[in-house]
Amino acid sequence: MEQLKDFTTIEQMEADTAKLKEMACAACAETWEDRKVNQTPQCKFGEEGICCKICSMGPCRITPKASRGICGADAHAIAGRNYLRMAAAGSAAHSDHGREIAHVLHKTSPDGSYHIRDEGKLLRLAAEWGVATEGRDIYDVAHEVAEVGLMEYGKPFGTLRFLSRATDERKQLWEELEIAPRAIDREVATSMHMTHMGNTADADALVRQSLRVGMADGWGGSMMGTEFTDILFGTPTVRATESNLGVLEKEMVNIIVHGHDPAFSEMVVVAAETKEMIDYARSKGAKGINIAGLCCTANEVTMRHGVRMAGNFLQQENALLTGAVEMICVDVQCIFPALGPLAECFHTKFVTTSPVARIPGSIYVKFETETAMAQATEIVRMAIDNYENRDQSKIFIPESKQGAVVGYPCEQIIKELDGVTNSHVDERGSYMPAIDAIKSGVLRGAVAMVGCNNPKVRPDYSHIEIMKELLRNDILIVATGCSAQAAAKAGLLSKEAKFLCGAGLRRVCELVGIPPVLHMGACVDISRMMLLVTDIAKDWGVKVTDLPIVGCAPEWMSEKAVAIANYVVATGIDTYLGIEPQVKGSSQMMELITEGTRKLTGAGYVINKDPHELVTAIIAGVEAKRAALGI
Amino acid sequence: MEQLKDFTTIEQMEADTAKLKEMACAACAETWEDRKVNQTPQCKFGEEGICCKICSMGPCRITPKASRGICGADAHAIAGRNYLRMAAAGSAAHSDHGREIAHVLHKTSPDGSYHIRDEGKLLRLAAEWGVATEGRDIYDVAHEVAEVGLMEYGKPFGTLRFLSRATDERKQLWEELEIAPRAIDREVATSMHMTHMGNTADADALVRQSLRVGMADGWGGSMMGTEFTDILFGTPTVRATESNLGVLEKEMVNIIVHGHDPAFSEMVVVAAETKEMIDYARSKGAKGINIAGLCCTANEVTMRHGVRMAGNFLQQENALLTGAVEMICVDVQCIFPALGPLAECFHTKFVTTSPVARIPGSIYVKFETETAMAQATEIVRMAIDNYENRDQSKIFIPESKQGAVVGYPCEQIIKELDGVTNSHVDERGSYMPAIDAIKSGVLRGAVAMVGCNNPKVRPDYSHIEIMKELLRNDILIVATGCSAQAAAKAGLLSKEAKFLCGAGLRRVCELVGIPPVLHMGACVDISRMMLLVTDIAKDWGVKVTDLPIVGCAPEWMSEKAVAIANYVVATGIDTYLGIEPQVKGSSQMMELITEGTRKLTGAGYVINKDPHELVTAIIAGVEAKRAALGI
Repeated sequence: MEQLKDFTTIEQMEADTAKLKEMACAACAETWEDRKVNQTPQCKFGEEGICCKICSMGPCRITPKASRGICGADAHAIAGRNYLRMAAAGSAAHSDHGREIAHVLHKTSPDGSYHIRDEGKLLRLAAEWGVATEGRDIYDVAHEVAEVGLMEYGKPFGTLRFLSRATDERKQLWEELEIAPRAIDREVATSMHMTHMGNTADADALVRQSLRVGMADGWGGSMMGTEFTDILFGTPTVRATESNLGVLEKEMVNIIVHGHDPAFSEMVVVAAETKEMIDYARSKGAKGINIAGLCCTANEVTMRHGVRMAGNFLQQENALLTGAVEMICVDVQCIFPALGPLAECFHTKFVTTSPVARIPGSIYVKFETETAMAQATEIVRMAIDNYENRDQSKIFIPESKQGAVVGYPCEQIIKELDGVTNSHVDERGSYMPAIDAIKSGVLRGAVAMVGCNNPKVRPDYSHIEIMKELLRNDILIVATGCSAQAAAKAGLLSKEAKFLCGAGLRRVCELVGIPPVLHMGACVDISRMMLLVTDIAKDWGVKVTDLPIVGCAPEWMSEKAVAIANYVVATGIDTYLGIEPQVKGSSQMMELITEGTRKLTGAGYVINKDPHELVTAIIAGVEAKRAALGI
Repeated sequence: MEQLKDFTTIEQMEADTAKLKEMACAACAETWEDRKVNQTPQCKFGEEGICCKICSMGPCRITPKASRGICGADAHAIAGRNYLRMAAAGSAAHSDHGREIAHVLHKTSPDGSYHIRDEGKLLRLAAEWGVATEGRDIYDVAHEVAEVGLMEYGKPFGTLRFLSRATDERKQLWEELEIAPRAIDREVATSMHMTHMGNTADADALVRQSLRVGMADGWGGSMMGTEFTDILFGTPTVRATESNLGVLEKEMVNIIVHGHDPAFSEMVVVAAETKEMIDYARSKGAKGINIAGLCCTANEVTMRHGVRMAGNFLQQENALLTGAVEMICVDVQCIFPALGPLAECFHTKFVTTSPVARIPGSIYVKFETETAMAQATEIVRMAIDNYENRDQSKIFIPESKQGAVVGYPCEQIIKELDGVTNSHVDERGSYMPAIDAIKSGVLRGAVAMVGCNNPKVRPDYSHIEIMKELLRNDILIVATGCSAQAAAKAGLLSKEAKFLCGAGLRRVCELVGIPPVLHMGACVDISRMMLLVTDIAKDWGVKVTDLPIVGCAPEWMSEKAVAIANYVVATGIDTYLGIEPQVKGSSQMMELITEGTRKLTGAGYVINKDPHELVTAIIAGVEAKRAALGI
């Protein structure tokens, strides 16, 4: 297959990493690979979730001679509490990001740094929330919508507004199970209370609260983060871009934006595009300014500006090892503290911008909404000034990069589908064309590929292997986060990736004009996936749990992933995990997160560390859903 | 000293425990002493705070060969994050308790289970918060005050209302340090976000947020819990009661109320006092119904009803081991999951009542505000029905008990001081008589004794040894929580305890008519201590940090204690700890929590596991404050 030769293989990626590792050695720099070796073997009590550090009578751990901690907590209580705390922390992280965006929305003004870019979306949300719009200034509307959104974090009564978007079946179920989340922060606080010494020791109750606090993320903080970001910076549309470290430019000032919250990185992108800054860069001998993204910040800015993506989570050190990065500028989440000492081995300036992510060894520029544009400009200037400090002997930029088409939020997917709808016969603005393709078997189903990298498995390998196998089996993929970037690096976000697909999916890609892996954004945008699946269920007239659509996080790593997995399962979507949740020491917890939740919500985890076995299970799961539907 | 012979010694307490341990062996029941042995040796990584379970790349730990976790977090980041998470969980627990009380206040009605008992306090709080009262129904006022209180958990803007009660010096400092807490739940969520993988790794920032989230407890959730509880159930006044397991009655139905939130236990107490229930108990052959308290629920109901206290934290299993407890009825926090299997070894019914504290092996009666009285009556009936199931061969009730005088909230202390104020010369309603006694040296100062028991040290020994030494040195004690109960069991809450005091303190006790250890309530009531110290500083005209008043938690155990310690230090009060915070693996963290915070807030921790060395340090600290004041 001649057309396949351009796709970057995992082996090529690993060869790049190996070369960069040589650069690290030369610079006496440590990387995660070294630290992973130093941390091996890892503590099995922690891995199995049966170590408790929740009070200072401990730490306690479950061993053959000790079936309970000092307070009497058994393996199930300990593993369950640890698990709920992970879900709570993940929900807090995502949701706090959403809160920050809400505060930015609250401070928009026609003459400030932040404006309303998607008025239509704002007005639709205002209508949904009963905020008056008639004859009002759009900024007044924005501020009131922001206030209503901020109240979702702390309102004393009632459950979350966005739950009304779900199917009737889910809404009723969530009420029955008492997992409909109240105020977002309340669910986090209650989770911390429940897991405090001397409270809940019942694994079932802990798992139910995990679902609830997860829902506070997916149908609360994350969903608001996504909506408000679209309102502020525009709902993404299709764009061509490139991915992998090859996007770094040898003769330009390279600035990496890294993290999750796009509020500041948006400003950096805009500042870097000003003539003033470009001229300044040229005056310093560079050919221009090259902004590249890492992690979810990359997903955010690529979807709205086409900014190229340097890589995903486990590549953050690699980016610096190229020796060609003048600045890495971070906001929140998934930022290695290792960047501090690593930046010192190179000329790279490491800039932190959020009080939530203070990291030693960084230059701290506290980002303020009011002065964001001026601060961004200063930061860009600082990077340009640093260009002359490059050490040419330390520079190695791998050549690997792949073209990618990004920017498929629900609105864009609908638009693409409208393009293949016969408007004389069928209604536009629905998922019916996709549903018809699934019903007919041209598409077998869809999988949401999400999540991080994790050194517990070969980085990106599981993502790419699973995706390729799904494509071969005519299963469409929607992707976010580091999974989407793994796809991008492997070329799977390109339209040419149709050549990797089975005949059915390939035909759909050609007909609709899409790549077979649709980039839906950052991890907070998994909330988009919840709405996608919900609306497909509504258009189809079946339950979410009936759909041949599942989620997969083969290399997940963070507590956010635990929150996500919980709201995905609560939404009724089976979730396939390639990393074991740290509850293996409790048979009850293992049962609860796999079969137990299935009895409650109709969905659960399937866990398998082997990507080939995992994808086999996914395909079997999709086919079983089809069979149950009689299609 | 003839008068000393009645004071229960620690050795007598331990002899009682030893006899109960024999009863446990006979019943094949396990207790914390067994589990402590099984958990020994405890994991040193956990004890030193340098084990990280915050993402699933881990667990990681700092060892001689591994100075960083896989992400690059070093010992300081890991210990700091773990510490902040403890403070956040503690703040969440206390504050969620306060929230529940606020919801009860919101549901008060003249014909419901819950009424307004302290109208004056409600009206003062309404005035403080700008809630209209003129011509309004008191229940309407209560509901609006409750709503304003509930908004403190989640308001999108501004800092906490109760901060305005602090001294001007503190208010200004908190603003400068950016540790004035915003909405309570927000500080919890932000703490969880900051400590999430890839966020703050800077120990200084983590300690500052620990202060802030602690303040959200002490000047937020706990303070509201205390205020609302007083409004609902009456501000405590002086009462005589008894303490220790000897309060259990051989020929009565014994019901133990255990936990922290008094909303339900208040109803149980009231239900048990009805003629209907007393008659029913008699019909079953009992002489009556005996309610006894454990942990902070004991403190709550003893202060308002004189209900006797069976014991503190590490006695909860001992209570059941007497074989004479028909029911242990719990709400939230500090409840051993061990009570489930232990209750099965006896006839005792174990009843849980809160969705926050679901415990296997219990009968779950979900407490609802609307039906609280009926539910409480049913529970009392269930206990009475269980009386006939006693196994006489398993009964051993230790004889030890001590008389105690309890119920000294700030209002009561002021009232006592008014009794010794010459109203022709001095203003009433101030702390001036106490201040004058301190200035003159009759009293050397005051210590707030607080906190739990912890098997890491000899239970109650540190509490009692330290208190006795303070009394000998003319240092007045205010006490809450398990520390207050240790004092009660040792007889230190009795007026006869004046015989254990130095001449100055003894004279004060005799003149004012108080015991030398003033029982201020439950752990949430440490908020009362913050106001006490604040108002003493105001009356005196000096800074809080100048006062010869410090705090001491010699046997602390829970995350709530970490939250408390943080707000006490933020308030400017030195805090003496007998258990090491689990940060010893980080030199930075050790410096920050001792000397570092002192540079910020003027107060810090002093840590010493030896109670005699600790009390020596306390006395030196008090005397140093006196010297600095020139008194």
